[in-house]
Amino acid sequence: MPLDHTVKAFDADIGQLRGMISQMGGLAEDAIAQAMQALARPDPALAARVRADDKAIDAIEAEVERLAVRIIALRAPMAVDLREVVAALKIAAVVERIGDYAKNIAKRVPMIANANDGSDHRIEPISLLPSMARMASDMVRQALDAFAARDPEAARRVVESDAALDDFYDSIFRTLVTYMVENPRTISQVAHLLFVAKNLERIGDHATNVAEMVYFAATGTQMADRDRGGPDKDIR
Amino acid sequence: MPLDHTVKAFDADIGQLRGMISQMGGLAEDAIAQAMQALARPDPALAARVRADDKAIDAIEAEVERLAVRIIALRAPMAVDLREVVAALKIAAVVERIGDYAKNIAKRVPMIANANDGSDHRIEPISLLPSMARMASDMVRQALDAFAARDPEAARRVVESDAALDDFYDSIFRTLVTYMVENPRTISQVAHLLFVAKNLERIGDHATNVAEMVYFAATGTQMADRDRGGPDKDIR
Repeated sequence: MPLDHTVKAFDADIGQLRGMISQMGGLAEDAIAQAMQALARPDPALAARVRADDKAIDAIEAEVERLAVRIIALRAPMAVDLREVVAALKIAAVVERIGDYAKNIAKRVPMIANANDGSDHRIEPISLLPSMARMASDMVRQALDAFAARDPEAARRVVESDAALDDFYDSIFRTLVTYMVENPRTISQVAHLLFVAKNLERIGDHATNVAEMVYFAATGTQMADRDRGGPDKDIR
Repeated sequence: MPLDHTVKAFDADIGQLRGMISQMGGLAEDAIAQAMQALARPDPALAARVRADDKAIDAIEAEVERLAVRIIALRAPMAVDLREVVAALKIAAVVERIGDYAKNIAKRVPMIANANDGSDHRIEPISLLPSMARMASDMVRQALDAFAARDPEAARRVVESDAALDDFYDSIFRTLVTYMVENPRTISQVAHLLFVAKNLERIGDHATNVAEMVYFAATGTQMADRDRGGPDKDIR
């Protein structure tokens, strides 16, 4: 088998791997957007669909694992190529978990919606959550775009943006707790919203994790001691 | 090469892989315990040591990756054996990140300690953090013990215990925010403690992630839809 053929076969394999990761990322972004839509309307049927669709993300992760293992076993890639295959395998595991957080949000929709029966009491702070979800979802897309483009600087920007999402979470947490205190009848619903916010915060943390893997795959070194600009930066 | 020899070589490889994961886990537990000790005394020199020691965890992760790739390429393991090698690779990535959280806690020690100068003002809620740290650290050890023992039921128990850690975090968060309001001079120190608590909460989340990987490696199926007993269970 001529070397040229092997190289082409590897390129085709890695292209397929990238395609699957990108597809997983798209599904995870959709899951986040739809879970938030289901929450805002509220639309329990849409929420049920988000939960069912999560199986597709799990299935692609399993495929990524199978293909990555096959590439390692058959093509014996070296250096940057091997780093990329291993990164794909690890990134798929993280994106699968991001999908789980979207599913967890969807699971809370019926509880939040049902408790609204009769009382017609609208929980105002719910309006803060879609912006936080967009921020988290953007981080996921940017981290996976950085992987597709092998762009370590784009990966670094994702890591840096995590501090802003953390601040957003802390602010929403305080707003929701204050709202609970002032509207004790809504406590159980607002508690669900607290978990929604926490799931979004964790999605951002996992996007950061992906970005760090992308940086390492592209450069062979860890992102500057994972300082994220040092702890001073995220206390504002 | 007789089959028997290949099987023995694989067993030796996988034994080495397990040993490295267990060693990483031990270092991560030490890092958590020492970071909390450095915070409680406070002891900035110990904190600096925790930060420096994190490199050892990173180095073992890189070794795990190399060995896992070599096992896949040379031994072409199948089914449960392959699942275990891939799980080791993914678990090492998560434990490496757990080490990062301990390092992040250590980084905050000087800021919290320095602000104490002169005023001799002790932040009482700091006394809640060691218990939370022990809970998080226990989850890490139990998840890695479950991996070593291929014990899916032990893995499930780790996942279930995450809800208690989340509750602990929420309670500490509220306590710290209340303390800030009542002691405005301590705001910057208490803000650092909030991030310490969040890092511990994330360590528990990552231990849960490891436990889910252990469950899958041992059984070939995902843990019951990752329900964790359903969202009702973690709202109490």
